[in-house]
Amino acid sequence: MENLIKSVPEPTLKRLPQYIHLLKKLKEDGIRQISSNTIANELNLDSIQVRKDLAVTGVVGKPKLGFDLEELYSALLHTLNWDNSTDAFLVGMGSLGSAILGYKTFPEYGLNIIAAFDNDEEKIGQSFAGTEVLSSDKLTDMIKRMHINIGVITVPANEAQKVAQQMIDGGIIAIWNYAPVHLKVPPEIIVVNAQLSQSLGVLTHKLAERLRYLNL
Amino acid sequence: MENLIKSVPEPTLKRLPQYIHLLKKLKEDGIRQISSNTIANELNLDSIQVRKDLAVTGVVGKPKLGFDLEELYSALLHTLNWDNSTDAFLVGMGSLGSAILGYKTFPEYGLNIIAAFDNDEEKIGQSFAGTEVLSSDKLTDMIKRMHINIGVITVPANEAQKVAQQMIDGGIIAIWNYAPVHLKVPPEIIVVNAQLSQSLGVLTHKLAERLRYLNL
Repeated sequence: MENLIKSVPEPTLKRLPQYIHLLKKLKEDGIRQISSNTIANELNLDSIQVRKDLAVTGVVGKPKLGFDLEELYSALLHTLNWDNSTDAFLVGMGSLGSAILGYKTFPEYGLNIIAAFDNDEEKIGQSFAGTEVLSSDKLTDMIKRMHINIGVITVPANEAQKVAQQMIDGGIIAIWNYAPVHLKVPPEIIVVNAQLSQSLGVLTHKLAERLRYLNL
Repeated sequence: MENLIKSVPEPTLKRLPQYIHLLKKLKEDGIRQISSNTIANELNLDSIQVRKDLAVTGVVGKPKLGFDLEELYSALLHTLNWDNSTDAFLVGMGSLGSAILGYKTFPEYGLNIIAAFDNDEEKIGQSFAGTEVLSSDKLTDMIKRMHINIGVITVPANEAQKVAQQMIDGGIIAIWNYAPVHLKVPPEIIVVNAQLSQSLGVLTHKLAERLRYLNL
């Protein structure tokens, strides 16, 4: 399976969790085979698109029978590396940071947030969702010592660049950035932006469009 | 300005918040003019892409001087309808729902979550971030009475479809869905998915790719 981890376009990667969520549910319902047409119908996607997306897993469906559901599910998890557990540190214990730390589903997605950091003296030493909050002063050193690869940034915009630098100094390779700011990082560092505003803009734009149409 | 609200491709819409965040910062720094090249450099984007993206606002830059920053900023807000305030209801007061309710920046993005709902008797009547949690039984009726257009879903996957239906029955037009499930809705309903797993999959895939490369 190792050679399945190869370059997949980002829009495809973003659709894969949908397939995983659907297949998980169907597995629980006892379904064992599924066609790409059924998947396309269930998710309201184009079936050619679905076939292309699923092809990145390397799993081949059988004519008429479709895919072995268990095999396809495992291969999708493997493509996103969700069949492995990766340790991560989170910095910024505001409301969003606390929510992410408390989100019970991330371990299913291979993400294991094992420590949280903040620079607020009142938060340091407190425990959230079973994890003690540590001082941000220790961040770089602990990343080095524990060989952490993923950093999650949930600090305010004006602190995010500094935190990113502390993470990179410690040896972080991949940053999941929730702060509403563009991080400047060396080209070898992976930054994936996860600002809630991205999808909110799509929503508010489309709603305005729809309301104007309805008023016509 | 009204006629500026027209169909814009989704990938463009998702990039607009980046420009807004950058321009907001530069405005605070006292900058008044900016070229698309400078914006492209600051955000590490292709400058042709930036020019195309900004063209959807209808604002035209001056040769050599570039854009009037204030004008461009206002037009970007207008394109996303973030210069208007839209009332929304949120359903699901778990850790993510509480975080979203407590997120102080949403009003800047035109989103005003004015009521929160849950079906957990222990949460009903409690107050989060200044908003009282109401019983989900009241959801449909209150949407009708208050003419609410946006519904935010932060319930677990297995409850999301039911909540979506209650929202639609009340007259909700646009759903911001955080539940890891595909919602089945009539074609006139706008659903924008905001599952955190979407961007996490990109992160964990790219990290696995990078680690394999480094091990070579």
